[in-house]
Amino acid sequence: MSRLDSAIRRLQAQRACIDHAAEAIASLPGPVLELGLGNGRTYDHLRSRLPGRAIFVFEREVAASPDCVPPESHLILGDFAETLPKAAARFAAAVSLAHADVGSGDPAASRRSAGLVARYLPPLLRPGGLLLCELALEVPGLQRLPMPEGVAPDRYFYYRQPSA
Amino acid sequence: MSRLDSAIRRLQAQRACIDHAAEAIASLPGPVLELGLGNGRTYDHLRSRLPGRAIFVFEREVAASPDCVPPESHLILGDFAETLPKAAARFAAAVSLAHADVGSGDPAASRRSAGLVARYLPPLLRPGGLLLCELALEVPGLQRLPMPEGVAPDRYFYYRQPSA
Repeated sequence: MSRLDSAIRRLQAQRACIDHAAEAIASLPGPVLELGLGNGRTYDHLRSRLPGRAIFVFEREVAASPDCVPPESHLILGDFAETLPKAAARFAAAVSLAHADVGSGDPAASRRSAGLVARYLPPLLRPGGLLLCELALEVPGLQRLPMPEGVAPDRYFYYRQPSA
Repeated sequence: MSRLDSAIRRLQAQRACIDHAAEAIASLPGPVLELGLGNGRTYDHLRSRLPGRAIFVFEREVAASPDCVPPESHLILGDFAETLPKAAARFAAAVSLAHADVGSGDPAASRRSAGLVARYLPPLLRPGGLLLCELALEVPGLQRLPMPEGVAPDRYFYYRQPSA
């Protein structure tokens, strides 16, 4: 499989997971969190699938094209190691869906990001809330869900806060 | 259509065109040119589809991961405005396929690149040689080919040097 094949599969998996999660939270209230804006592609997809839903974006530094940048009120700038702990009170047990696209070409940085997501995200999820991540997370309190149809296992990771 | 949808369509179109062209030149000798290495994704796809074929890459500055960088002997570094005119004698009427992925977020830079490709590439193509580009090109000497099945028109541009 070439890098081009692999990129197509990765984006298709991302879309299938986001579409599945957006449908799954249709009747679950609460904001959506996007960790890592990048070029703004998945943020744009989230807002297209969840019109009217508040989406807060965590990002170290904005590099997306201007039409894919959230309003300032919904942008939380800074290193995850600082912004995620600070978000604890604001979003505690409120979030319906968090999408963490925090992997990078640097394995050490990716492991660090996965560790931060695993530590700080679960308490933010409301019962039934979902967490999607490109990286496997050590989140013993969450249920791991199977991938939506057509998505290879271990290409994306899909977790859920138990309902009760 | 979200940016994510659009990115998936663009990469699928890219793959469909490259696969189609690789099959079309199977019995046509001559090197392949890749204009713009970028992250190395399409270079990797070209070499996977055309094993044994010489692929020369033109790039201003290499930013791909090391396993997607061609050997130094097949890498032509510099601005297209300098490297393409210099390539005229070396590749004259020899090239079987050129893939020009030279568009960027900057419309003026994209137009400039398209102009350089349109000016310098056609004389390099052997009879029956193919030119694939993400941008529309003014190449009156070449035939415009229809897109492979499943690819929307005007998402990619496909040209051929007449056979005689």
